Amino acid sequence: MPREDVTKVVLPESELPTAWYNILPDLPGEPLPPLHPGTMQPVGPEDLAPLFPEALIMQEVSSERWIDIPGPVLDIYKQWRPSPLYRARRLEQSLGLTGKQRLYYKWEGVSPAGSHKPNTAVPQAYYNKQAGIRKLTTETGAGQWGSALSYACATFDLECLVFMVKVSYEHKPYRRVMMQTWGANVHASPSNETQAGRNILEKNPESTGSLGIAISEAVEIAAQNADTSYALGSVLNHVCTHQTIIGLEAKRQMEAFEDVPDVVIGCVGGGSNYAGISYPFAMDVLEGNAKTRFLAVEPEACPTLTRGIYAYDFGDTAGTTPLMPMYTLGHDFVPPPVHAGGLRYHGDAPSLCGLVKAGMYEARAYMQTPVFEAALQFSRAEGFLPAPEPSHAIKGAIDEALAAREADEERVILFNMCGHGHFDMSAYDAFLSGTLVDFPLADDALDASLQSLPPQPAPA
Amino acid sequence: MPREDVTKVVLPESELPTAWYNILPDLPGEPLPPLHPGTMQPVGPEDLAPLFPEALIMQEVSSERWIDIPGPVLDIYKQWRPSPLYRARRLEQSLGLTGKQRLYYKWEGVSPAGSHKPNTAVPQAYYNKQAGIRKLTTETGAGQWGSALSYACATFDLECLVFMVKVSYEHKPYRRVMMQTWGANVHASPSNETQAGRNILEKNPESTGSLGIAISEAVEIAAQNADTSYALGSVLNHVCTHQTIIGLEAKRQMEAFEDVPDVVIGCVGGGSNYAGISYPFAMDVLEGNAKTRFLAVEPEACPTLTRGIYAYDFGDTAGTTPLMPMYTLGHDFVPPPVHAGGLRYHGDAPSLCGLVKAGMYEARAYMQTPVFEAALQFSRAEGFLPAPEPSHAIKGAIDEALAAREADEERVILFNMCGHGHFDMSAYDAFLSGTLVDFPLADDALDASLQSLPPQPAPA
Repeated sequence: MPREDVTKVVLPESELPTAWYNILPDLPGEPLPPLHPGTMQPVGPEDLAPLFPEALIMQEVSSERWIDIPGPVLDIYKQWRPSPLYRARRLEQSLGLTGKQRLYYKWEGVSPAGSHKPNTAVPQAYYNKQAGIRKLTTETGAGQWGSALSYACATFDLECLVFMVKVSYEHKPYRRVMMQTWGANVHASPSNETQAGRNILEKNPESTGSLGIAISEAVEIAAQNADTSYALGSVLNHVCTHQTIIGLEAKRQMEAFEDVPDVVIGCVGGGSNYAGISYPFAMDVLEGNAKTRFLAVEPEACPTLTRGIYAYDFGDTAGTTPLMPMYTLGHDFVPPPVHAGGLRYHGDAPSLCGLVKAGMYEARAYMQTPVFEAALQFSRAEGFLPAPEPSHAIKGAIDEALAAREADEERVILFNMCGHGHFDMSAYDAFLSGTLVDFPLADDALDASLQSLPPQPAPA
Repeated sequence: MPREDVTKVVLPESELPTAWYNILPDLPGEPLPPLHPGTMQPVGPEDLAPLFPEALIMQEVSSERWIDIPGPVLDIYKQWRPSPLYRARRLEQSLGLTGKQRLYYKWEGVSPAGSHKPNTAVPQAYYNKQAGIRKLTTETGAGQWGSALSYACATFDLECLVFMVKVSYEHKPYRRVMMQTWGANVHASPSNETQAGRNILEKNPESTGSLGIAISEAVEIAAQNADTSYALGSVLNHVCTHQTIIGLEAKRQMEAFEDVPDVVIGCVGGGSNYAGISYPFAMDVLEGNAKTRFLAVEPEACPTLTRGIYAYDFGDTAGTTPLMPMYTLGHDFVPPPVHAGGLRYHGDAPSLCGLVKAGMYEARAYMQTPVFEAALQFSRAEGFLPAPEPSHAIKGAIDEALAAREADEERVILFNMCGHGHFDMSAYDAFLSGTLVDFPLADDALDASLQSLPPQPAPA
């Protein structure tokens, strides 16, 4: 039986994990490499060299299970890590559970930027600094990733250039100010700083931008300047690997609670926070040592895993990246403006998609109204205000608990609270005032966006 | 020598202090009781009974040094307590310090409401619930206290009615939404809910409100309804006592660092966060077991301790509370709109003022521009974004460190980071864009507001 005298487990710094877990060598089936869209041949390290430093490229394709975390990265992690893991006892009570179904959550909102994103922003900044890079560029939509990279760059004394989608730049000024406080240079995208931006503005001076355009701008600057790299906040393997610090800590903390999760839940946009909490538990399943279930939760408005198809597709909207094997809605897909901006992505991390494809990971989609109902129930019970993204995981966890109660089954549920909602209060306002709108995805709209899939490689 | 291998100390829940420290019996000199403004006689418990439950009234006048923290309050404290204590090593580096001057900070921004305020909101809600009270009323300006009480009421299933100064209600909508998310009922003050509000609106329908008016509205509702109490977020003794959980934890954490603070620093508005971190250290000095210095930091725009006079004055602007012995700028004083809304109070906690009067506590005032410079330096080094209020403490700590370096003296400095600035980014924006304005207080303006002091009691 689990320990009932503990609210949260906070590990001492001495128990901070010192290596990340790389799931690549453990994935079921043959690895599917990213392909060059021109040649349809596997992309090699040399193709990525203009954008990323060698250390990160090596991690991207590494077959080593464990990757040592550099000392200077551990030093920065200690500003907020190990992050706490809670037993959601008050949420259980508010659901009328009596201990047979138990809820636990990992709380990543304690980082300076308020989410899990610094777990990878910090090592990315570190490896770039080591490689002699002077400046990092990136794009940001809602602002979580741009904030995390701005913080990481301040930490390792790098310049940071953020292209922020213009509509967000105008509607979320406080995220912009946060980045500037850490010293970043923030441009509304499309901007006049790049050829890509100028081309868009020439055609449409009133363009409000898109993540695809912002990526093009950030990549252009990095590709043209030897002292500048590009940084990506999700999807890629090295990003998912860095995030496994979450799950590695969570395993030790669940042991301290003397409990074992039956199901591990997280929200999925590009996949990095859910990869982070779940891969260390998946390792045990892949080794045959556990029978944990895995549940990825996404918005009905952007149902990549539940309604997308498994195919090679571009990572970006503009169609300039390598082709990646993943569940996708088509790279042309324009997600409706749900408040969970971090979940509005047409694809998902290839490693995660492989686990869904293999039948090991389940996926579920929700409309945003029941998600905000879950967020409200959580915040009144547990206090913390979740961001819209992890509120999807909360909804999934609540439904799992209620289903187990219905079936009179014991079920231990662990979910990832990947960030706070302090910069998302307008979404709560919309929910509380009854103006929140749901965006079901029509079949014909999905069919249309799937037309954007590129030609697929011939079967091997 | 201090431990150099530790970034932060996070105590396990098992080391959470189980009693608060009440400084009243240890204060130097004869205690000066609050006086009834009509009779000029000491106020008795019966005068406070219409507003507060008996348990809190007893704590207000208690001569017991230690007050046990009830189990249900400890259970809620464990949602975020013990809070971490950091060695600000990266800030030291950015200041060019080499270890002879050492900076430590206690981080209260990890609470659900984002500040130290829940340390007292939670026990206040608990004691009211125990007394059969159904609803709490309060006022809030910037919103920190209203948020904390809303959270506490959600926790103990009490109704919460918050009168929010209208200008803040309109300019800080996200603080309002935060309170509503926790289920509070929030009115812009002056409101039509009370006679006090209606009187103001009749004279001036466009009134933007004031903290004084909001207090009058909250007190009116509590005084008229037997099932309703009023809750105050600072100044009173029971509030300062609840906050000593901060300093009690900090003492154990400094021991874990194997270091001893030479000076303890905090910002002062009503005084509760600084009382909280400093009184447990002051206890040792009062007992003759330590020689710690104490430095209270306030805004030049509202320089209660540095330019106010020590006298009996009303706690509120409207002149309806008991008279309290304190440093005051006169209860008519209208502080200019500095961003540190929590420091805009004409008086200070009587216990804290007594320690300043006795020469044991020092005080210093700063303009807000150098305070935001310090906030920026802190956030770029340590990551976390401080609220404008604790940024005053940061500025004080930096100046102490630099003065000690100048004198080539060893100095160990502990300061309280009492809350995050996630809802204050407009202030950072003003600073970064060069539009921040300072508000020096002219002598004649101070002389005018001191005219509002009531007749003083005859010397004993």
